[in-house]
Amino acid sequence: MTKIIIIGGGFAGINLAEKLGNKEGLSVTLVDRNNYNFFPPLLYQVATGYLEASNISYPFRKLLRKMKNISFRQGEFERVIPAENKIVLSTGELQYDCLVFATGAETNYFGMENVKQHAKPMKTINDALELRNHFFQQLEKATLVEDDQARNKLLTVVIAGGGPTGVEVSGMLAEMKKYVIPKDYPELTGHGYESHIYLVDGGTKVLAPMSEKSQEETYKDLTEMGVEIKFNMQVKDYINDTVYFANGETIQTETLVWAAGVTASVFEGIPAKSYGRGRRLLVNEYNQVQDLPNVYAIGDTCLQLTDKNFPEGHPQVAQVAMQQGKNLARNFVAMGKGDPLKPFAYADKGSLAIIGRNKAVADLPKPNIHLGGFIAWVIWVFVHIASLINYRNRLRTMYNWTGAYFTRDQSLRMIIRPSKK
Amino acid sequence: MTKIIIIGGGFAGINLAEKLGNKEGLSVTLVDRNNYNFFPPLLYQVATGYLEASNISYPFRKLLRKMKNISFRQGEFERVIPAENKIVLSTGELQYDCLVFATGAETNYFGMENVKQHAKPMKTINDALELRNHFFQQLEKATLVEDDQARNKLLTVVIAGGGPTGVEVSGMLAEMKKYVIPKDYPELTGHGYESHIYLVDGGTKVLAPMSEKSQEETYKDLTEMGVEIKFNMQVKDYINDTVYFANGETIQTETLVWAAGVTASVFEGIPAKSYGRGRRLLVNEYNQVQDLPNVYAIGDTCLQLTDKNFPEGHPQVAQVAMQQGKNLARNFVAMGKGDPLKPFAYADKGSLAIIGRNKAVADLPKPNIHLGGFIAWVIWVFVHIASLINYRNRLRTMYNWTGAYFTRDQSLRMIIRPSKK
Repeated sequence: MTKIIIIGGGFAGINLAEKLGNKEGLSVTLVDRNNYNFFPPLLYQVATGYLEASNISYPFRKLLRKMKNISFRQGEFERVIPAENKIVLSTGELQYDCLVFATGAETNYFGMENVKQHAKPMKTINDALELRNHFFQQLEKATLVEDDQARNKLLTVVIAGGGPTGVEVSGMLAEMKKYVIPKDYPELTGHGYESHIYLVDGGTKVLAPMSEKSQEETYKDLTEMGVEIKFNMQVKDYINDTVYFANGETIQTETLVWAAGVTASVFEGIPAKSYGRGRRLLVNEYNQVQDLPNVYAIGDTCLQLTDKNFPEGHPQVAQVAMQQGKNLARNFVAMGKGDPLKPFAYADKGSLAIIGRNKAVADLPKPNIHLGGFIAWVIWVFVHIASLINYRNRLRTMYNWTGAYFTRDQSLRMIIRPSKK
Repeated sequence: MTKIIIIGGGFAGINLAEKLGNKEGLSVTLVDRNNYNFFPPLLYQVATGYLEASNISYPFRKLLRKMKNISFRQGEFERVIPAENKIVLSTGELQYDCLVFATGAETNYFGMENVKQHAKPMKTINDALELRNHFFQQLEKATLVEDDQARNKLLTVVIAGGGPTGVEVSGMLAEMKKYVIPKDYPELTGHGYESHIYLVDGGTKVLAPMSEKSQEETYKDLTEMGVEIKFNMQVKDYINDTVYFANGETIQTETLVWAAGVTASVFEGIPAKSYGRGRRLLVNEYNQVQDLPNVYAIGDTCLQLTDKNFPEGHPQVAQVAMQQGKNLARNFVAMGKGDPLKPFAYADKGSLAIIGRNKAVADLPKPNIHLGGFIAWVIWVFVHIASLINYRNRLRTMYNWTGAYFTRDQSLRMIIRPSKK
């Protein structure tokens, strides 16, 4: 019986685990710091109150229930001892025959400690719920403030990072500003009331990985919706409710949403030479970590330079993670039977980003076309619903979206914090 | 324009506010510490993962949107200065013509400080979510513990209080133990595995306010489901994971759910002589606080001895709160027109408590009958769905319940804590 341990149950880890389900000769333990899987592409909707956390998350134990050879263990990785084939978690030690790192990526603060302390990240369910609590508390506070300047500071949001996450959050906030706030916060309308949604990026474009057409359309649509996009604005610091930029400019705000970059994790016990750019683990065409033949890495945390279409490595996106997970599963099964292994080659199915109600951009590689507006939005909705992990999540999400679509409104704005003693 | 301030947006406050909506000559401010209303009778379902918090809660601003004479203000009561018709909140000061206390009741720890520090209450949404997190963390911890005694302590739950809340929580836990845990926590089945659900009460019956038939049926059903009910067991202390009882017995557990009593709040600025039993504000037949003619109290926080059918005061239940709220609204409107006021008389429509899937007990006063089993459960479902405050909550709850009913399962067991920095 080959014992496989997978650290991380995101796109990569869960696809790997599911494809190993009920396969002979393989015993799998999936480890994750949370007891649930969640769907990151829709986090920004949890953060702005359009979806509930439970619409996009699902307990691992339920997911893996029917797979008798897979068990779940909640815990955090502490270190690995490759010479002993042993891994140490916060919840105990485990032996392995094969170890797979599928830990994804974490928020990158680029060494800026104040930003790390005070900005709002958007990488986990807890991040998204805290951001939601924060937004709605800011609104309540603003209704009580008389001084125009103080109130407008409460109503200003700076989103750092012009990639898909930043675009999506700013689009949703613009929708809320236009449709929800006038109806429910009458104290915030009228003279003297001013709010700003700034989307800032150190570069010169939004959605840098996408096509030029997608970038232009996104810029135009967001601007029309009221988002103020500022380029060549690299954040240098965030102190006393002021964001400082490299070019000397500043913006006053109590809300800096940090979507400006990710970095992989380092693992105690893995030698320094195993890491490449962005702290990603260097792997061969079979996702084996170099010099550690029974240690593997898949998804955002790995850097694979063997794919001829992507000689500098793959983008850190969901599709790559899912495909690498499935390919590795196929290879584990093949190993057991003495069959040949399959090197990984990423099949780019395209990119999507949503801008607002009815608006999205899509780049489809074959044929090489760009779609925008309503048709792209329909594709976006379809792809995201289909990708949610469970029929219940799909139904609940459809329900919430249908309501939000027709009423241009949302209702998930309760400020809630479970009170741990 | 008569300015009315309502402190508290629960059953009493929200019914009062809604009946004052768009009434001429009245300007209303509703104050609550949360920005949402929630439905306490279903909290125990949030606590056990069968419903999401958003199924039973709704933002005040959305609720009151169409009522132009009603505004919402988030804040906590600090003190009142009756001589100046002024109230001080955590978020500022307000003047009033009429003040209404609709603050409900809070958990009563009977002076036991250790219980207050370490037991799990069940009075608010945050309580329920924290209890849910706790239950599922206990299960994960238990899967990793080798020692039988230590593991069984993790799997033991003591619920203090044999009223409806205690009965409902223990019934749900028994359902989970029977149907959910064997499927998803295979590590917890088999030899050496022992878990206990204790329902303890200082008295000699469950559901003391209900009929004898309801009490007997509930006792029988819960026991058959595996709940161990112990009477004459009054909690004296809770230290080092041990519950101490007045009769000298002890039970080892990391989970003491405290549903053993409620108490009203005291309000700084209201004289001591205005309070009666249970710290409830003494009011006349129009819900006016004695000696403070423009201060009122409704719901759990008041004690009204003028109702001939309830000379010792009303039970602290939802129906009383709702009816007092509506009656006071009627009287405020009448006052404006110089019409006669209506003294309050409670119309008892009956009591319901749910025991488990398919099982409930109902006491209907006219005619004086008791119902049990499936028919009572149908009534319970109907009443609770109808009472949820908004069509969306009703639909979502129906959806979650339908799934849970047919699959004997639930999926809302993600351990989530928004991470406030």
